[in-house]
Amino acid sequence: MTEKIVADLVIHALNAAVLFPTPYRGRGTPVGWSVVEQRDMSIASHDGHIVWIGPACEMTDQIRVTTDCAFINGQGRIAIPGFVDSHTHLVYAGDRSDEFEMRVRGKTYLEIMAANGGILRSVKAIRASSEDELFHESAQRLWKMIKSGVTTIEIKSGYGLDLENEIKMLRVIRRLANELPVRVIPTFMGAHVIPAERQSDSDAFVTELCEIWIPEIAKSCLASFNDVFTENKAFNVAQSLRILEAGKRHGLKPKIHADEISVIGGVDLAVEVGATSADHLLKTDDAGITRLANSGVIPTLLPGTSTFLMESHHAPARAMIEAGLPVAIASDHNPGSCQFFGASIIQTLAMLQLRMSAAEALIAATLHAAFALDLGAEIGAIEVGRSTDIVLIDANSYRLLPYRAGDSLIETVISRGIPVYSRE
Amino acid sequence: MTEKIVADLVIHALNAAVLFPTPYRGRGTPVGWSVVEQRDMSIASHDGHIVWIGPACEMTDQIRVTTDCAFINGQGRIAIPGFVDSHTHLVYAGDRSDEFEMRVRGKTYLEIMAANGGILRSVKAIRASSEDELFHESAQRLWKMIKSGVTTIEIKSGYGLDLENEIKMLRVIRRLANELPVRVIPTFMGAHVIPAERQSDSDAFVTELCEIWIPEIAKSCLASFNDVFTENKAFNVAQSLRILEAGKRHGLKPKIHADEISVIGGVDLAVEVGATSADHLLKTDDAGITRLANSGVIPTLLPGTSTFLMESHHAPARAMIEAGLPVAIASDHNPGSCQFFGASIIQTLAMLQLRMSAAEALIAATLHAAFALDLGAEIGAIEVGRSTDIVLIDANSYRLLPYRAGDSLIETVISRGIPVYSRE
Repeated sequence: MTEKIVADLVIHALNAAVLFPTPYRGRGTPVGWSVVEQRDMSIASHDGHIVWIGPACEMTDQIRVTTDCAFINGQGRIAIPGFVDSHTHLVYAGDRSDEFEMRVRGKTYLEIMAANGGILRSVKAIRASSEDELFHESAQRLWKMIKSGVTTIEIKSGYGLDLENEIKMLRVIRRLANELPVRVIPTFMGAHVIPAERQSDSDAFVTELCEIWIPEIAKSCLASFNDVFTENKAFNVAQSLRILEAGKRHGLKPKIHADEISVIGGVDLAVEVGATSADHLLKTDDAGITRLANSGVIPTLLPGTSTFLMESHHAPARAMIEAGLPVAIASDHNPGSCQFFGASIIQTLAMLQLRMSAAEALIAATLHAAFALDLGAEIGAIEVGRSTDIVLIDANSYRLLPYRAGDSLIETVISRGIPVYSRE
Repeated sequence: MTEKIVADLVIHALNAAVLFPTPYRGRGTPVGWSVVEQRDMSIASHDGHIVWIGPACEMTDQIRVTTDCAFINGQGRIAIPGFVDSHTHLVYAGDRSDEFEMRVRGKTYLEIMAANGGILRSVKAIRASSEDELFHESAQRLWKMIKSGVTTIEIKSGYGLDLENEIKMLRVIRRLANELPVRVIPTFMGAHVIPAERQSDSDAFVTELCEIWIPEIAKSCLASFNDVFTENKAFNVAQSLRILEAGKRHGLKPKIHADEISVIGGVDLAVEVGATSADHLLKTDDAGITRLANSGVIPTLLPGTSTFLMESHHAPARAMIEAGLPVAIASDHNPGSCQFFGASIIQTLAMLQLRMSAAEALIAATLHAAFALDLGAEIGAIEVGRSTDIVLIDANSYRLLPYRAGDSLIETVISRGIPVYSRE
């Protein structure tokens, strides 16, 4: 007689569990995945990890529940992996709704800058806010993200742009990680834009970033990643390389904002430094796609941003998928260029703007996004051994999620084996 | 000493009330409106109508409250008019998510039809559903609409396409009107598309519609409006004219789906029959805009639909506004061509796709939409004498509403003087 598997959480008698039978290879990047809706399933979890997935009728034979086991009735529900939002600027202060309106009404980027808009405006707002104020405003937003099904979220600094305020943002991100019941991944992005007061000598700013800020932030364990905006109006390739290499020396894994406005070599740099992800990629051409293939760099597309900026051109998702790239999608939620909120609407936009299928959008928002955070083996799929990060939706198929645009089908959010949100 | 005004509902000490100081002229269509955010205001209501709007500090001097007066604290809240969704197909059964995906992946309309898609698929689903099933599915959707701030909604029949099933749909709409706490306006749309079984002799179908269906539905008081889809693949101008005139003879006010795919004379017809609104207008040209000017026909644009259908071209909202037309926007929520849900996201899309300002989008979704339902004097604005249909949002300006794309700022929904929804 085989030993029963011990569980402290059971999701029983699901309409279906959405599974990704996926072969892996190379640097852990998935290729050739598929999405399967397995009917009449149960899932058991112990200590925050999935320990069993099987037909509902076999559950009682296979599982021994602990005395305090949580039991969730899955009838009429579909279980999908918790969403992974691998690119956000969720910590910010105030709004930039007037800039949004100026852009809609045809004002140019330069006109908006002249009206004190742009990233530097968010910098002023961050500098004027206390750590407590920032935490409370951001925690409210993060709770809304959780209700939209997000169980792992990356959040970047980059609106401080001096050491004191970058550390303030990263401390807010750490407090969100400690006080809210989901996985929060902190990214240092001192290299978001060159601050107004340093534009006359950007190389000296880069030196300070590499020699003072990065060591200080790494020492305080305030960030896992180090991100840079490689763009004509921000940091050139040589500067970006210095910044990413400095981060690597101090244990910060590289990420990069590449090819958003112009192709200046960001993708080559991402591959050269072994970036975990290269993000935006709006203008990436065939050469860039070829460069990314089998590189281990996860291409992360942000369809909310190109939509919010009213771009007529969107990232070449189809060419990337056809080239076998493990495309991830993320919200890029921020006060300037993308206010789209919640995981479902980003999947809707991935379908409408990037021409992805519902299955491609789902895997891009879960497993591929997990790889974009170097967590591809731990989260992002419903699989034995992975973290029990699961969302239950009120629908007969996961395909309803992006189709019901702007509606929320999320009923229950389970993070690390604990139900953290239930509707009503 | 002047008599105090009696109130049974007071919304006190609002951060601001959003008012539309608007001159009216002609057939009651507003021209030259503006949007004003008046700070530190209170609003009093009696018997479902607004009786007083004034500075919060004057409230106690001016208002005598009834013993059972409801009191809502408006601090930190903005009061805006309840949203009017003047064009929906909210009563339907099931989903068409596979068609959505086929379209995203490049399938043509004809290929989707060949896979049993399109309106006729919704017709099959309606015919297979009981009145009770349809009511419960639609009531759930209407509650979500209410939570998104909608206090008046138009709902069309048109998926029945035989007399029995059209009446079934209209009875569901009447039951929604009776059982849910918002204003529901029923529209008969037997002329949605020519049913499969009648395509060989569409003129005979039109005759039956005019001589049997319309009189029957009018006699049962099941509809206020009579709508027709004037399009090459649906009803030609001569047929549409017969249908709208038959409706008028029986007291049903005309509406029209015009210029969505091709310009075949729908706008001219709308003006000729004195339609309350002409909707879609994706392809309307300068001649059409000129025709609509001062016609009393409200042009109703549906940016969710052109977005959901991935059209590269959207309705010419700017040219219409510049020509002085009172542009309305609506959701067109339906299972095939638009699943965008909720009033805020439609305003976001009106800004992104139609290049409307936040003020233009707000008035299009409230007062102009009220005119599109021939209710321009009763609802759609916060004004003494109008119905107390008010939404409170958690923001410092109404401009945040479309900017916070996909987020919901709605805190409280008041319909006809009664709070019908409060968050948490």
